[in-house]
Parts: sequence; structure tokens; C-alpha cells
Amino acid sequence: MNSARFDILGIGNAIVDILAEVDDEFLAEQGMIKGSMDLIDAERTDKLYALMPPAVQTSGGSVANTAAVAAQMGVRSAFIGVVSDDEFGHIFRHDITSSGVHYVTPPAPPALPSARCLIIVTPDGQRTMNTFLGASSSLHPDYLDAEVIAASAIVYLEGFLFYVPDSRESCLVAARLAHEAGRRVAISLSDFLCVERNLEAFRAMVRDHVDILFANESELAALTGLDDFEAAAEVVRDQVELAVLTRGARGSVILRGGERVEVPAEPTEVVDTTGAGDAYAAGFMAGLVADAPLAVCGRWGSRAAAETIRRLGARPLGDLSYLRG
Amino acid sequence: MNSARFDILGIGNAIVDILAEVDDEFLAEQGMIKGSMDLIDAERTDKLYALMPPAVQTSGGSVANTAAVAAQMGVRSAFIGVVSDDEFGHIFRHDITSSGVHYVTPPAPPALPSARCLIIVTPDGQRTMNTFLGASSSLHPDYLDAEVIAASAIVYLEGFLFYVPDSRESCLVAARLAHEAGRRVAISLSDFLCVERNLEAFRAMVRDHVDILFANESELAALTGLDDFEAAAEVVRDQVELAVLTRGARGSVILRGGERVEVPAEPTEVVDTTGAGDAYAAGFMAGLVADAPLAVCGRWGSRAAAETIRRLGARPLGDLSYLRG
Repeated sequence: MNSARFDILGIGNAIVDILAEVDDEFLAEQGMIKGSMDLIDAERTDKLYALMPPAVQTSGGSVANTAAVAAQMGVRSAFIGVVSDDEFGHIFRHDITSSGVHYVTPPAPPALPSARCLIIVTPDGQRTMNTFLGASSSLHPDYLDAEVIAASAIVYLEGFLFYVPDSRESCLVAARLAHEAGRRVAISLSDFLCVERNLEAFRAMVRDHVDILFANESELAALTGLDDFEAAAEVVRDQVELAVLTRGARGSVILRGGERVEVPAEPTEVVDTTGAGDAYAAGFMAGLVADAPLAVCGRWGSRAAAETIRRLGARPLGDLSYLRG
Repeated sequence: MNSARFDILGIGNAIVDILAEVDDEFLAEQGMIKGSMDLIDAERTDKLYALMPPAVQTSGGSVANTAAVAAQMGVRSAFIGVVSDDEFGHIFRHDITSSGVHYVTPPAPPALPSARCLIIVTPDGQRTMNTFLGASSSLHPDYLDAEVIAASAIVYLEGFLFYVPDSRESCLVAARLAHEAGRRVAISLSDFLCVERNLEAFRAMVRDHVDILFANESELAALTGLDDFEAAAEVVRDQVELAVLTRGARGSVILRGGERVEVPAEPTEVVDTTGAGDAYAAGFMAGLVADAPLAVCGRWGSRAAAETIRRLGARPLGDLSYLRG
């Protein structure tokens, strides 16, 4: 195995977030499940946006957030994901590139606008997401850069890609290319609804292709069919090399073979949890590629998550190397 | 005079802000004057954006901010300004409309993209602005809605409009229509560079057409040619019905005929001063249209400015009626 050019290559949806603060009644009126992500079409996007109060626009996308935060923490990061050559595409490209991430995926044909996610932030800081995938759904395996995949120590995928057949296929191809090059494959399960709706594909993916698994409690329960956290954790412990299980304010549990590490959450003011899991993964993998002990990996993850939670939007601005500590 | 349908009609540039936090060296390298606003062309916009770190996009525009914050404080507000039928135009329209502002200006032909302002926020919280006017420069008098002007108690203009001949002409036409309907004309001088570069036009405007003047210290000095604040204040006291002079952390001085009121600034953490003056004007005029004493108008202005300064971006989100106190 050659030495890696990149520590982490993220492959995921390329999205600009539109964030607005609303009351809980809004979720009920709109029939949304708090804390989840659902896909919406162009017409629903326009209607929902019109109902939202004034908003803030920032770059998003789960794995894209992880790649950006990791780069801001000093990790050599790359990203593959598709935008159009439009304003939102320019914003996405500018932000991830200026974060220090290697991002050269060519734009999709202009038939589809770049993806956007309408994010409802409730007073408890929870975020509920409604994503119009647009151009991001064009992530066919042709967009995969085999050289970059082979040159990345960890190839990190997002479960959200499983909603679109082309993107799901890209996950399988990327995992195969990574393993052929002797690299490791990581995945975030992304969302419990997403896992429930694509259950067999997720089970096969985790069992057959994943080395490092990131999941929160509800995603873990959906994957295993077990509501008991400890029982579910035992199932995935046997399936992957490393399982990183986040539990919100209760911190995280990290399992590697017979090893088990528990890490507390970093106390912080809760403004907006958008991107908290993405930032945790960034901090965790920043530790992993630095060969830090699992407890340190978990602490960096918790610190990165806390930094994200105490502000609106998924990506803290500026140099984040101070989170390595 | 009929009773007014709107308390405040703002006429100004319709802009989306792109805000990024940078060090002071960046300003020096780019030859920018801290705290000022300069106009840039499309090519310079692309170059400067490429040099900026990851950013946040929010609706802006000086008078547009005032109209939005005033509406959020419960004032009946309207706005006239031009965007294109593009993504940034949609963001601008969505945010000002959902703030509760009456905004029906039709979009400009798509030849020009909607305006954007690249805002550099330094660690001291100062903002330095670089504006690509694009479609906003299309604000020809044909866009003025004479009925709305005649139905608004205060018609509020921004000095930035004086950079573009068509927009400057719109200021004069709007002032004439307002006065013919027995309404009052207010203006913010916007920026000392803008005043210096269009000095005679500003002097004629203030002397001949303005009832209510908003200016900060550097704008007042540029207008009057007097560095001494008290001497400059005496000059404008004689020219306008009401002069509202802001002095940053030293608060504001309000002059109406023989009356003089001094209002302290509201203490706050300084994150980003973008929109502080706009919010002050919103709070002040919210008091004015409620027939509050000048000291109360000033306090509402100071409270609205403080609420803006302690966060990134020009417009605080949500209901701001609590600022009336």
C-alpha cells in the first residue's frame, strides 16, 4: 500500500442549507418528524420555503460538512459530490474549497439546480431537514475519481446516498476501489428513516463492505432491529472493525474488537444541532488518522460537535485546529 | 393628508450579503478601508470571493435591513428595490417578505444577476463591504410605486443610491411624490466615502428635500466638511426637521429644533457591526411612528442595534417586538 495523499475522502451529497428558527407547531402543521431528514421535490421545496421565516444560507451536506471540519482541523481531506454551475453550486464549491478540502468534481449539466436543504431549527436546538437533491442526485459512479479513492486512507460515505440508486451504486464501487487499494471504508448511517427505508441494502453494506461505522442510537436501532442499545452495539461490534456510536448528550461509545471506550459529550449551549454528528465524525477521524488512542479520537469528536452545536449552521467558521486537544 | 397605509417605506438597494470572518491583514492586502463600502465589478467580485474563507449568506441592503427589522418590531413597512429572478433574488424576496414587509417590486430583466455584498468582518467586529450592484442598479424612477409612496408616513432613502444616476433620480422623484402627499422624507447618509464622492448632490438633497437625517460621525463630517462633531451637528440642525446622529459606542445625539436628546449605546458583545446603523434607524422610526418621545425612539434604536451587533449578519431573526421597551 502506498502512503496516502489524503487522510479522508468524503463522498456525499453536495448541499446548501437554508436554516430558519421556528416553533414546534410548525413541524406539527407540516407533518414533519422532528430530528429526521426527508426528501422533497421542487414543488414542495418552493411551498415549504414560502412558509418559512427569514433564513440563513450556509454550505451543508453531511459528509461534506465532515470533510470541511476535518480540513479546518488540519486533516488532509478531499470530497466528491455533485453541484450545478449555479449560485448555490458556487457557494458550495467556494466554501468547501476555501475550507482546505480538495474538491474537483465537475458540475452536473444545468438541467437540475444544485441541492438545497430546508432546515427547521426548533427552540430546543433540534433540526428537521427537508432536502431537494437536484443535481446532487447525479452522483453516478462515473463521477468517482479512482485515483483519489486509491490515494485516501479512509473513504467516508453517507447513508443518505442510499436513497438514489446511482448514488448507492457509487458507494459500492467506491468501497470496492478503496479495498482494492488497501484503504479503509467508513460510513455514517445518516438518519433512522433512511435506514428503515433501505434496510436490506444498509445491512448488506455494513456487513460486507464497512470497516468503520458511525451511527447514533436511533440509526443503530433501525439497522439492528434492536431497541436495546447494548444488544444492538454487540451486533455491530462483530460486523465492523470499529463502531462509533453517538448518544447525543450522553456522549459516545466506541467499540473495537474487545476494546470499549466511553466518551462524555462536551457541555455546551445548544443553539442548533445541525451538523453535530458530522463534526463528531470529523474530530474522531482526525484523531484516528493521527494514530491517537480511541479516547482521544472520541474527545476530539465531542469537542468538534460542541463547537458546531453552539451556533447556527453546520460548519463552524475559521481554523479549528484548537479542537485537537 | 389621508391616514397612512404604511408607517415606513424604504427605497434602497436589494442585496444578499456574503459574510466571512478574516484578520486585519486581509484588508491591508486587498487595499480596503476598514468600515467603508466600495462598489466592485463582476470580475473583482469573483476574484475577491475566491480569496475569502467559508462564508454565510443572509439578506442585506441598508434600507432593506431597516424595513425588515422595523417590520419585525411591529411597524407597517414596505420596500422598493430591484433584484433579478435568480437564486439570490429569491432569497432576498423571501426574507424581506417573510419579515412582514410589503415588497412587490417586479424583478429586473435577467441580464444582470442580483446584487451581492462581500462583507469582511474583522476580529474587532467591524465590517468592510464590497458591493456588486448588478440588478439593483436598475432602480429607475419607473420602479417607484407612486401610490405606495403617497400612502407611507415616512419615505426612507439610502445614500448608497447616489452612486447610480438612475437611483439618485429615483430619490429625488420619491422625495417629491412624498412631499406632494404630505409625507416626510428620511435619509441615511450610508457611508462617508459615498458622501465624499457625491458631496454636492448630498448637500443639495439634505438642504432641499430631507426632513429626517440619519448620519454617523464620519458621514456628518464628510457632509459638513467639519471634523468637530458639535459644530457639524449645529449645521444640520438648521437644515432638517430632525437630525439623528449616531456615534457608535458613544451612543446617539438627537436634535429637533431647540430640543437635544443624548442616548447611550446599549452594552453588548460585539460580533459583527453589519447592519447596526440600519437596525438603529428601524428602532428609532418605530418609536417615531408610535409618537414616542425622542429619548424612547433613541432607546429603541440602541436596543435594535445591540441585538444586531451581537450576531453575524445584518438582521436578527424572529419577532423583535421585545425591542420596544
